[in-house]
Amino acid sequence: MLSYYEPSSYEPKERKAEFRSISGLPVKRLYTAQDAEIDYDRDLGEPGQFPFTRGVQPTMYRGRLWTMRQYAGFGTAEESNKRYKYLLGAGQTGLSVAFDLPTQMGFDSDDAMACGEVGRVGVAIDSLEDMEILLDGIPLDKVSTSMTINSTASILLALYLCVADKQGVSWDKLRGTVQNDILKEYIARGTYIYPVKPSMRIITDLFQFCKNQVPNWNAISVSGYHMREAGCTAVQEVAFTLMDGVAYLEAAIKAGLDVDDIAPQISFFFGVHNDFLEEISKFRAARRMWARIVRERFKAKKDDSCKLRFHSQTAGCSLTAQQPHNNIVRVTMQALSSVLGGTQSLHTNSFDEALALPTEESARIALRTQQIIGYESGVANTVDPCAGSYVIESFTNRIEKEALALMKKVEDLGGMLAAIDKGFVQKEIQNSAFQYQRDIEEKNEIIVGVNEFQMQGEKAPPIQRIDPQLEIKKKEQLKKFRSSRDQSKTDQTMKHLEEAAKGTQNLIPFIYEAVKNKATLGEISHALRRVFGLYKENVVL
Amino acid sequence: MLSYYEPSSYEPKERKAEFRSISGLPVKRLYTAQDAEIDYDRDLGEPGQFPFTRGVQPTMYRGRLWTMRQYAGFGTAEESNKRYKYLLGAGQTGLSVAFDLPTQMGFDSDDAMACGEVGRVGVAIDSLEDMEILLDGIPLDKVSTSMTINSTASILLALYLCVADKQGVSWDKLRGTVQNDILKEYIARGTYIYPVKPSMRIITDLFQFCKNQVPNWNAISVSGYHMREAGCTAVQEVAFTLMDGVAYLEAAIKAGLDVDDIAPQISFFFGVHNDFLEEISKFRAARRMWARIVRERFKAKKDDSCKLRFHSQTAGCSLTAQQPHNNIVRVTMQALSSVLGGTQSLHTNSFDEALALPTEESARIALRTQQIIGYESGVANTVDPCAGSYVIESFTNRIEKEALALMKKVEDLGGMLAAIDKGFVQKEIQNSAFQYQRDIEEKNEIIVGVNEFQMQGEKAPPIQRIDPQLEIKKKEQLKKFRSSRDQSKTDQTMKHLEEAAKGTQNLIPFIYEAVKNKATLGEISHALRRVFGLYKENVVL
Repeated sequence: MLSYYEPSSYEPKERKAEFRSISGLPVKRLYTAQDAEIDYDRDLGEPGQFPFTRGVQPTMYRGRLWTMRQYAGFGTAEESNKRYKYLLGAGQTGLSVAFDLPTQMGFDSDDAMACGEVGRVGVAIDSLEDMEILLDGIPLDKVSTSMTINSTASILLALYLCVADKQGVSWDKLRGTVQNDILKEYIARGTYIYPVKPSMRIITDLFQFCKNQVPNWNAISVSGYHMREAGCTAVQEVAFTLMDGVAYLEAAIKAGLDVDDIAPQISFFFGVHNDFLEEISKFRAARRMWARIVRERFKAKKDDSCKLRFHSQTAGCSLTAQQPHNNIVRVTMQALSSVLGGTQSLHTNSFDEALALPTEESARIALRTQQIIGYESGVANTVDPCAGSYVIESFTNRIEKEALALMKKVEDLGGMLAAIDKGFVQKEIQNSAFQYQRDIEEKNEIIVGVNEFQMQGEKAPPIQRIDPQLEIKKKEQLKKFRSSRDQSKTDQTMKHLEEAAKGTQNLIPFIYEAVKNKATLGEISHALRRVFGLYKENVVL
Repeated sequence: MLSYYEPSSYEPKERKAEFRSISGLPVKRLYTAQDAEIDYDRDLGEPGQFPFTRGVQPTMYRGRLWTMRQYAGFGTAEESNKRYKYLLGAGQTGLSVAFDLPTQMGFDSDDAMACGEVGRVGVAIDSLEDMEILLDGIPLDKVSTSMTINSTASILLALYLCVADKQGVSWDKLRGTVQNDILKEYIARGTYIYPVKPSMRIITDLFQFCKNQVPNWNAISVSGYHMREAGCTAVQEVAFTLMDGVAYLEAAIKAGLDVDDIAPQISFFFGVHNDFLEEISKFRAARRMWARIVRERFKAKKDDSCKLRFHSQTAGCSLTAQQPHNNIVRVTMQALSSVLGGTQSLHTNSFDEALALPTEESARIALRTQQIIGYESGVANTVDPCAGSYVIESFTNRIEKEALALMKKVEDLGGMLAAIDKGFVQKEIQNSAFQYQRDIEEKNEIIVGVNEFQMQGEKAPPIQRIDPQLEIKKKEQLKKFRSSRDQSKTDQTMKHLEEAAKGTQNLIPFIYEAVKNKATLGEISHALRRVFGLYKENVVL
């Protein structure tokens, strides 16, 4: 309870002995031009020009706003379809499909391994029928769709292509992304199935297939988000994500692809945490670094290959169950920093996500957050408005420098595959997560409503849960679907697929044929498990 | 104005033919160092140093955060006292008292003119008894208090001093502000009583009194907020507010005060509207301009005299009754831009203010907004983080230039008093308000939920209204208070006051004596009305 009146004999006294960003980097009291050494053409460049620090397009949001893409999906395909239509009706501009764990892990809803998980964290998709219901009434030539799917990405893409066929939409009109980033599954997220080598093969098969058949589709979304959620710092998020990108590019080139063919189909996915200035800087640094890597290391000739395009999502881990409306405030600032950082696409979390599945109301408020930023705040009127800021340019330089140093360590271990295998990446993330947790416990980091400004006797908002009857019904529907198919045709396509898996042919056309002939996601995954085996985690202590 | 970068081969396609700030200033696609010409020492300077563009203190929020000061007050003194304690308990760091209209206009609760308005837009304060209840249990040496009161500012300050006496707090320990800005009442807000000349006398009397007796009290809060709410632009807000400041300084100097005695007791109060980048720039421009005015025009010798210290409030006029939770998003961004602009004190509006008086819950969320910005976002870790940004420095320069041009027009009309008398200021604001309204109607400005992204069948949040019984009870309490006093003593102090008003003595000690002897706010105001007469508005067509 102090006043703002400062007598003239003012002695600068600070609240803390030292100030650090959320990622632990020291923050100075004052930044001036001396802290932000940049050569404009070399380090920033115009937007739409190498190294793309100021953005990947010349007009950025004056051309069009980022894609407002709310990650959603729960229960059955019908329910999720209804939510998508609600969100599109409310002005959402892109779809983002959340799948349940069985779908992500390659188990049908009636698999013993799926028990209790059907439709829980996302929508359950077993078959072509489910996919048709999920996308019913949504014109695939008009919407871009992101699917958060990794081990089974090729199956879901194949299902999507079948729906496009039914809608009469040619594949070159399809726009969207499959996450398809298996490396971060080994590191942080955990929905892997096969060992590294066959997993990388499926991924490069998908690259090749998309390049030839679905040219406007992003064949991968290299994701730092889940590492950030697992507790890594902004620097680690950039370093490990870009190193994953390097590993994919290397694998693709090894498989015979040209860097300028595949690099433009690579997109990225980052988190946006609380530290407003650091996060803006992170995105700018990541763009510059990726551009330099692709040009200098991979000798890309096309500018398009060097553009780091990214989706971002506000930090789920920063949301609190306590005083949930406070999360609207957090999400607003995170979303704003992502926009000031030049995101291409954005998910804003619903304020009640720390408690339950978002309601229609909370999902709408989250979408409105983006619309208010886009239409009311004026930040979309000019490109990269933070450029030149002493703090932002200094942070951008620093994140680049620190991330490069960490990437060097990974290189010294033999690259990302080796570093994951040795547990280095996992350990680094664990250490950061531990440090952050300790900072909260010691109140070096204040979380409003959690370790400060708590309230007694809170009332929880209305929550929405999955009906346990859903799993039973889903199993029945799948049984019916299986009995309706021409089993001999299904069996034949499955046999072809299994043979192809044993050889070196591109797997995607075989998967496409299989799902078209009503093979299920679980059946395909089991077939590949028989050929490829299972990944065993290297436990890090 | 348009000189943005056009790469030769690129054909830019943009969403709009032209982009403008909310205040109507053109916004370019791209800003570079060429757009942001600054001489660091001359135009920015270190924080805490002339011209204070980077802030009025060297450490800013590393020293301590801005004062979190939620404007509150409704119904009776008891109810308001309860709300203040709630807010202080929730971590608010300063008080801000909202008074009802009768209190602001100098009518007691039992005056015919007060009918229907008692306790409606703020708390009803008639007497010393009310003030004692209002501040019960709040130690005046520990809290800083802002009182939004103008025509009757001297009476409320006198009441506050009496409560300090009772608490045994010496007046030099008191910190806070009375708004005391009559000029913007004539322009936009309307709670004036007396003609300009006696009003200016009371104000300069208060300056003198505070300087001698209450040295840590801000004797005025020169307010642009209400002009902004009435529809003026950011440039007009800066220009007219600073011109009001000039008028007060001139009046004080004419009354025999030294600029270096009075300038450090002048504080300011601005709105924060939606345009994120423009608002940050506005605050920086206003600081630089005021510093130069006070030093160059008024020949101030002390640096302290040149510091523009300000309170800010998020824009009530930007909030929507539709989808009220969207207001949390708006308020968050506005609050953030005010913090990035270097505010000393901040009120964040409650999301339901467009509908009704804030509930405890909505008031808490508004306060939490400030705490999350202060403790979680990291923006308080470094001083003036937008400095150097090409956009921000360019906007800062532009607002200064445009505001100086408008101030020149006011000077040419004979200064602010003349410009108000001629209706110039009012007309300028009206024109801007009209233009903004037209922009909304023509959808040049999108207001989410109002002219775009509307929803059918909204449910309103729970609202809180004033009990109509309150007015009846208040009248009874006032009657009792009057009957309890030593009427002859009251009469005597009132007689002294009326005589002093007819002469040239400083009025504040007489008002203090009157309220101490239980004269009421309405009685004092009526006495002064008899001497000074009433202001008659010059209707602007």
